[in-house]
Amino acid sequence: MTRERYIRPLDFKRGCIDMNHGAGGRASAQLFDELFLPALDNPALRAGDDGAVLELPPGQRLVLSTDAHVVAPRVFPGGDIGSLAVHGSINDVAMMGAAPLALSAAFVLEEGLPLAELRRIAESMGAAARAAGVPVVAGDTKVVQRGQGDGVFIISSCVGVLAQGRCIDGARARVGDVVLVSGSIGEHGIAVLSQRESLQFDAAIESDSAALHGLVAQLLAAVPEGAVRVLRDPTRGGLATTLNEIARQSGLGLLLQEASIPLRPEVAAACELLGLDPLYIANEGKCVVICAPEHADAALAALRAHPLGRAAARIGECVADGQHFVQMSTGLGGRRMVDWLAGDPLPRIC
Amino acid sequence: MTRERYIRPLDFKRGCIDMNHGAGGRASAQLFDELFLPALDNPALRAGDDGAVLELPPGQRLVLSTDAHVVAPRVFPGGDIGSLAVHGSINDVAMMGAAPLALSAAFVLEEGLPLAELRRIAESMGAAARAAGVPVVAGDTKVVQRGQGDGVFIISSCVGVLAQGRCIDGARARVGDVVLVSGSIGEHGIAVLSQRESLQFDAAIESDSAALHGLVAQLLAAVPEGAVRVLRDPTRGGLATTLNEIARQSGLGLLLQEASIPLRPEVAAACELLGLDPLYIANEGKCVVICAPEHADAALAALRAHPLGRAAARIGECVADGQHFVQMSTGLGGRRMVDWLAGDPLPRIC
Repeated sequence: MTRERYIRPLDFKRGCIDMNHGAGGRASAQLFDELFLPALDNPALRAGDDGAVLELPPGQRLVLSTDAHVVAPRVFPGGDIGSLAVHGSINDVAMMGAAPLALSAAFVLEEGLPLAELRRIAESMGAAARAAGVPVVAGDTKVVQRGQGDGVFIISSCVGVLAQGRCIDGARARVGDVVLVSGSIGEHGIAVLSQRESLQFDAAIESDSAALHGLVAQLLAAVPEGAVRVLRDPTRGGLATTLNEIARQSGLGLLLQEASIPLRPEVAAACELLGLDPLYIANEGKCVVICAPEHADAALAALRAHPLGRAAARIGECVADGQHFVQMSTGLGGRRMVDWLAGDPLPRIC
Repeated sequence: MTRERYIRPLDFKRGCIDMNHGAGGRASAQLFDELFLPALDNPALRAGDDGAVLELPPGQRLVLSTDAHVVAPRVFPGGDIGSLAVHGSINDVAMMGAAPLALSAAFVLEEGLPLAELRRIAESMGAAARAAGVPVVAGDTKVVQRGQGDGVFIISSCVGVLAQGRCIDGARARVGDVVLVSGSIGEHGIAVLSQRESLQFDAAIESDSAALHGLVAQLLAAVPEGAVRVLRDPTRGGLATTLNEIARQSGLGLLLQEASIPLRPEVAAACELLGLDPLYIANEGKCVVICAPEHADAALAALRAHPLGRAAARIGECVADGQHFVQMSTGLGGRRMVDWLAGDPLPRIC
């Protein structure tokens, strides 16, 4: 494609998003050419067509996921809304046992957003996409008037390919299956919250935001096909809500051991200070694995052999329960119900 | 999947979106179960997993598109933000010559949005998806605080399959090729504007919002593979901006005949009243076709044989021009430059 010459390049020092950037005319084209394309560069995006064309390996099925990201603040320890949008949609595809192929990204921008900030976010998105090996191949940008948005929302979709015969979903857990988690919980939510409330904790807590498809591939290679029944990333609503979703989908109960759930001391301390239960705090780089019992040791070893799964642990098992309750054995020998998240302790956490 | 019982069903008379609906817990699950799922029902969505699995015909390539929809007002003559979100992303895939397979939809909701309005929008989306034969298989919902959004934004992505060997994109126009348009221009923009400004025109102007993949399939079946070089829907920025994009991508000029561009008299009258040029007004159910000259008559006949292409017309041709200008022969025998849209006469038109 011929590159357009614009009268003036974008002013990244003082320039801001205005309504013209969303009108689909020359200003929109310049924003794409000088901001998004350099940050996210790849051949499909560069072609500048309405959709991106992707080659597909033969004999596979397609997986499609989408995720809207409205996290506030937009930058937090360990990430920002750009890297989060990449990781979030990749992880949804990875949780189906599929290999992510490409991303799309739609931006809803508020008039007045500094161009420099948008560029930093787009660059972070590009860096995360390159690190994951999953390019952003299609996009769209809309602008809303000041006061009708909040800086930037990023909505990403991911397509992936799923091998024939693979079937991993929330409805496949069976009584006796083992529940694993790939690492310590609650870090993303506490990292975002620490920025929002200007809280200073003794130890900096970083978001765990990460793309999990490499970890999942290593896990699935280590056990026979079918041994991994369910994969799910415990994002909004935390581990508790994710486990309730699985119990409901599979029509069984879950019994957890509280002491075995990995939790970093600084996250535990922050939760205690803030009156929050880490079981309900969002994660962005962890996954729950429900696995056939005879392969649970191999699955756990495979998780622990990956940099993103070093703190993986066996945290419970699937039990028969017509009411699909999630329960937890506490340190004192008692049992407590682990219900769905009710209310919203942490709005706009992702 | 087992259906959850909620304490109280959603209150569609008085209920509104609150932050809990975006928290990923029980309120989010109820919104999905009682509002989105009935409106958009299909097996992939019902499975309730992080991504949707799609079977793919063999020997095809994948096309991915995404579109953010922020149209204001949300309901306009001829459609609403729900049907528009379905048509917009389907059309982006259709413009690559691909067959749309499935949609995803992400909703960014503002606290306080009436549930009844959201249900109407979701139902409109479902109806448009069923009419087009392209289901909404994956979704996400986020809620932002009052004053940080504007009711509802819908971001849709579409995946489609592209036959091996088919290559239709904005860079393939050649000197001598013919420019067709599938119908009269400017209706979507004027329809939205008429609602926004509470304008009363003598004749009601309806949006042309429609899914174009059927029209495109009929067109492509009528001419040899390769005869259709470029397809593009002239949305934001209108016909003028779309043609400039194509001229830039293909590295040539375009010469239009003003008198041959289909324009309904009531749209022309509204544009004159409002001081707008119909060439820059958004369309949501029209496409530009650039076609080899020897097949232009067959292409035009195929367009006119489809209900969405009855007013199709030949409007110009591709010419050699190192500056990639779009020019137009006017009724008086003169020529005028048709530049890119500059500024934003109609913010949030789609």
